[in-house]
Amino acid sequence: MRTFLDCIPCFVRQALDATRFVTDDVRVHERVLREVLRAASEMDLSLTPPEMGLRIHRAIRQLTGVVDPYCEVKERFNRAALALYPELKTRVRAAHDPLEAAARLAIAGNIIDFGVRSSIETAEVEALIDGALDAPLEGSVAPLRAALGEADRILFLADNAGEIVFDRLLIEELPLERVVVAVKGSPIINDATRADAEAAGLTDLVEVIDNGSDAPGTLLGVCSDAFRRRFEEADVVIAKGQANYETLSEAEQDIFFLLQAKCAVIARDLGCPVGSFVLRRHRE
Amino acid sequence: MRTFLDCIPCFVRQALDATRFVTDDVRVHERVLREVLRAASEMDLSLTPPEMGLRIHRAIRQLTGVVDPYCEVKERFNRAALALYPELKTRVRAAHDPLEAAARLAIAGNIIDFGVRSSIETAEVEALIDGALDAPLEGSVAPLRAALGEADRILFLADNAGEIVFDRLLIEELPLERVVVAVKGSPIINDATRADAEAAGLTDLVEVIDNGSDAPGTLLGVCSDAFRRRFEEADVVIAKGQANYETLSEAEQDIFFLLQAKCAVIARDLGCPVGSFVLRRHRE
Repeated sequence: MRTFLDCIPCFVRQALDATRFVTDDVRVHERVLREVLRAASEMDLSLTPPEMGLRIHRAIRQLTGVVDPYCEVKERFNRAALALYPELKTRVRAAHDPLEAAARLAIAGNIIDFGVRSSIETAEVEALIDGALDAPLEGSVAPLRAALGEADRILFLADNAGEIVFDRLLIEELPLERVVVAVKGSPIINDATRADAEAAGLTDLVEVIDNGSDAPGTLLGVCSDAFRRRFEEADVVIAKGQANYETLSEAEQDIFFLLQAKCAVIARDLGCPVGSFVLRRHRE
Repeated sequence: MRTFLDCIPCFVRQALDATRFVTDDVRVHERVLREVLRAASEMDLSLTPPEMGLRIHRAIRQLTGVVDPYCEVKERFNRAALALYPELKTRVRAAHDPLEAAARLAIAGNIIDFGVRSSIETAEVEALIDGALDAPLEGSVAPLRAALGEADRILFLADNAGEIVFDRLLIEELPLERVVVAVKGSPIINDATRADAEAAGLTDLVEVIDNGSDAPGTLLGVCSDAFRRRFEEADVVIAKGQANYETLSEAEQDIFFLLQAKCAVIARDLGCPVGSFVLRRHRE
């Protein structure tokens, strides 16, 4: 997906928020902001939004020297999600269609924000699960089920820490011996890396690889050769989250995008209302 | 008031919104946006926010050739506000303290958005007036009353079209023979110019001058010499709206700022909650 003009003010806001998360030094906030404004003023709008995200976070790393500012947040989100896992698993097992229930919960994992809390009240968890299981779904699970039945190589592109525990529910409904899960090669925002796949218990279940990249989503041009080969060889790709849609919506592979359409730009691109739960096959 | 980093994403968003208001040509949207990003990347943050506003709207005028894109909007807002005027005037006359009631309604005029409607339902008007008269006020009318009693020259800096009809209520509570009302020298967004002062009936009541400038607020450096002289000679200045606060908060004059604190940056600068009705004497 190309970058729309509406993405630009959003980049600028994100750059400021992210820099403030990393440091209290207002001189650094200003330097990052100016760098992002300058880059945005010259940006090739045919590039995808995560390419600007990559540039922003590289600038923050360079100007602060902090490599993984979200480390603690990621660990906390994993713990909070793992505390929910048993209840979520019970609901998937009890569901009329466990694959669909797991897919819906994996999408819900894309939007859960544990914020500053380390735990969520039981009543909230129930409401959250019920909401995810009852939400209207843009797309259906049937084509995914059919494609999985025929695929020898299934590549699952994880998104964020915390969310990756919700992804495990869906991964457990897949033919595990044919599944490879890919995480980021190095830290970028709160995206899942190998440490998060381990925390979520995925490394004991399936093969976990990393994509060799520090970009949000999957920018194939900056991924490792090894990852690109696995991507090209995959019969089915399951791609979680907005950034994976933004970076792979033009790819040739057979991709199923699972995400919540969080902003107006992506909702318009997908042709659905903001906030929709989306399970969209790329080829459709 | 200097520009804060939080103002920058807001500028970028405003530039896009304003350009879209003027033209449907996406190439122009992109050119304005790139120009604003470049300018913001090099901006002197000790300047006030309206200086970037000036730059944005000059770029839009230059790239579109449209001098007064908000012309129709301003006329519509004036008409809608004039339709409310009799009811508002009745309420001021009936008030225990007509000066305070008129000041509150003038502040309320700063936030009324008639949107796409040409009229507002009676019930809404009542709710709006009651809200304005009952809202907590940051500051009090007593110092204004005292200053007005001693002032020979009172300069009233108007803000937007439509709002200027609400301002008339307050101006009518002032010693008219000592009042001069200043509007913008040429169109900038929906700010009031001489045409709006005439539409509001002010030119029949008091002397109306213009500030010779096409900037939001009052950037003294780009105002006419004639205006600057009147500003310097004024014993009391009443300045309406956020942009006048942003541009004059460091000035030497005895200024009473009347505004609603619409954004977090200005609310922090004023030390009040977002949304507050503010009647603040500059010297306090």
